[in-house]
Amino acid sequence: MKDLKVCIMGFGAVGQGLAKVILLKKENLKELYGVNLKIVSVADSSSSVICSDGLDENELIRIKKETGKLKNYPEYGSDISGLDVLDACDYDVLLEAVPTNIDDAEPAKSLTLKAFKQGKDVVTSNKGHLALFYDELLGAAKENKVLFKFEASVGGTMPIINLAQETLPANKVTSIVGILNGTTNYILSRMTSEGTNYENTLKESQHLGIAETDPTQDVEGIDAACKTVILANSVLGIPAKYDDVKVEGISNITSEAIEIAGQEGYLIKLIAEVSEDHLEVSPRLVKKGSAFDINGTLNMATVTTDLSGEVTVRGIGAGSVETAAAMLTDLIHVIREKYYVDD
Amino acid sequence: MKDLKVCIMGFGAVGQGLAKVILLKKENLKELYGVNLKIVSVADSSSSVICSDGLDENELIRIKKETGKLKNYPEYGSDISGLDVLDACDYDVLLEAVPTNIDDAEPAKSLTLKAFKQGKDVVTSNKGHLALFYDELLGAAKENKVLFKFEASVGGTMPIINLAQETLPANKVTSIVGILNGTTNYILSRMTSEGTNYENTLKESQHLGIAETDPTQDVEGIDAACKTVILANSVLGIPAKYDDVKVEGISNITSEAIEIAGQEGYLIKLIAEVSEDHLEVSPRLVKKGSAFDINGTLNMATVTTDLSGEVTVRGIGAGSVETAAAMLTDLIHVIREKYYVDD
Repeated sequence: MKDLKVCIMGFGAVGQGLAKVILLKKENLKELYGVNLKIVSVADSSSSVICSDGLDENELIRIKKETGKLKNYPEYGSDISGLDVLDACDYDVLLEAVPTNIDDAEPAKSLTLKAFKQGKDVVTSNKGHLALFYDELLGAAKENKVLFKFEASVGGTMPIINLAQETLPANKVTSIVGILNGTTNYILSRMTSEGTNYENTLKESQHLGIAETDPTQDVEGIDAACKTVILANSVLGIPAKYDDVKVEGISNITSEAIEIAGQEGYLIKLIAEVSEDHLEVSPRLVKKGSAFDINGTLNMATVTTDLSGEVTVRGIGAGSVETAAAMLTDLIHVIREKYYVDD
Repeated sequence: MKDLKVCIMGFGAVGQGLAKVILLKKENLKELYGVNLKIVSVADSSSSVICSDGLDENELIRIKKETGKLKNYPEYGSDISGLDVLDACDYDVLLEAVPTNIDDAEPAKSLTLKAFKQGKDVVTSNKGHLALFYDELLGAAKENKVLFKFEASVGGTMPIINLAQETLPANKVTSIVGILNGTTNYILSRMTSEGTNYENTLKESQHLGIAETDPTQDVEGIDAACKTVILANSVLGIPAKYDDVKVEGISNITSEAIEIAGQEGYLIKLIAEVSEDHLEVSPRLVKKGSAFDINGTLNMATVTTDLSGEVTVRGIGAGSVETAAAMLTDLIHVIREKYYVDD
C-alpha cells in the first residue's frame, strides 16, 4: 500500500470539508486504488499542524472550531505558517483552499508556484490566481511536470471543467452560458418568489450565511467573472484575463423590474457567458421553465459544442463538503494518473 | 506519428456518423495526441470494405447511400461479412454500431468477444449485449486486458456514464432518475402541447423519422430498460439483468390523462429509475418546470450522490453524428490510456 501524503493550505469551510471527505473516503481509496491517503500538514492563516504519520481528521476540525488555531493541536501544532509549511513537511499533493484574492492572488499564487517548484501536484478551489495568472500558473505546472487541477474553482460541486475535458473531448466547445454564482441566484430567486427588494433580501441572505458580511465579490459579479475567465482559458482555450470580462452585478436590480419581467414570462438571472468574442457577466432575462430557471444556490451551465449540440449541467454551486468533493475528484484524477497501476 | 486503425461494424446512421466525425476530427487528433486515425475496415450486414491504407470517409458514405452495399466500394469492397471481417483486417480498435438486439444480443456479442480475444479494444453504441450479458462482457474484456467503452449506449450524446465515472468519482452514486428515451419523450411532449392522441402522434413521429416503423423497443420501454440495466451495472455497481427491471411503456397513455395532469401542474414522462432496490421504467407524473420538464427528443438524468447532492445533466439523446460523437469521446479515452504519452 502506497502512502499519498497531502498538505491542506487554508482551513476554513472548504479546508474543513476536505478533512471530512478524506475521513469518509479514505478506506474507499485504499480499496479502489491501493493508496493510503494521509493528511500530513494543515495550515490556517497564522499557524499549522504537521505530522508525517498523518493527522486525525476529527481532531483537526475540533481544535480549529474550539480554539480557532491549528497550533493548539496537541504535540504537532506549531507557529510555522504560509510558505514555510511547504518546506517543513514531506508531502505529495497540495490541496490549496485559502481565500480567493482578486487583487494580487496571494497567498494562493506563491503557495502554488512553490509547490510546483518542489515537484508537487496541486489541487485548488481558488479562483483569484487562475483569473489573474492562468498562463503563468499552467506554464509553471508544465515546466515542472506536475499536475494542476481546479474543478472546484468553478461551480462548486457542479462538474463543468471535467465535464468538458473528460466527457466531451470529441467536441469543440463554442460557448458556455450559465449561472455560476449561488449567492446572487439565491437573492434573485427570493426577490422573485417573495417580491422583496434587493437590500432586505441581501440582509436575509447574510443572516442565513448564504451571503458574506462583505458581499461585494458575489453581488458585483466579481466571483462569476473569475469563473468566466477560468472557463475561457481551460475549456475554450481563449487566453482571457480578468479585465477582458464585461461585468455588471445585481445590486441595481429592483423588485419592480423582476415583477415586470415575470408578467412577460421571464426571470432575471445573473448570467455568465463565455464565447470566442464575448466574455460577460450581467443580469439578463431568461425564460421561465428554461434550463436557466433554477432556484436557490444552484449553479447551471449550458455548453454548446460542434458535434453534441447543447449539453446542460446543474448542481450545487457551493458548500463545504460539496466543494471539497470536487477537490477530491481532482485528487482521484491525480491518483489515477500518477499513483495507480491497474493490473 | 502512430497509426490508430479502426474497424467499424455496422454502417447505418451511427456508423455513417462515425465516418463523418472521424473525417471532421482526424486532423485534430493528430495535433492533440499524435495519432493518425484510419478507418481500415467497415462492414454492413452482408458485405464489407477493407483497406489497410485507410478508407475515404466521404466515399464510404456515398457508396452506402447510393448502392446500399459497401461491397461496391471500388477495389476494396468484398463479400466478407460478420465475424470474418475481424480476421480479414489488421485493426486496433473495434467501433461497434450494429443494431441492438434484445433477444440474443447478436451479432454484437460475438463480434465483441472475438475482438477481445484478438486483444482489441472495443467502443460500442449497442445496448442489447450490455443489458443481457454485462458481467460476461466486462469479465472477458478484463481477462483479455483490453478496454471496453460504452458511453454512447445510454443517452446518445448526453454524457452520463463518463459523467459519473470521470467527473464524480469522489462520490457514491445512490440513484439515477431520468428520461432516457428520446422517441417517447417526443411523443409525450407532442401529445401535451397539441392535445393529440397516442396513435396519431406515433404516426406523426414515424413520418418524421423520430419513431421507427416498428416502434416497440421505444414505446414499450424496452430501450429505456436496457439503459437502466447498463447504468445499474456500470455506475451503481448493481449486478442487474434485463429481467430485473419493471417495465411499462407509454402506449396506454391517453390525451385525457395528460390533460388532467396538466391541470394540476404536472406532466407525464417515461421515467427510468435506478437505485439499489429499484429498477423501473414507467410513465410518471413530474412537476412542470422541474428538471424533468424537457421537450422533444432530449434526454436528462439526475444523479444523486453522497457528497455532491444532486447533479443533473441534459443533452441530445440520439442522432447519427451526436451518438458517433459519444463514441469518439470513448475512443479518445482509449487513445489517452493506451496510445498517448504526454511529454
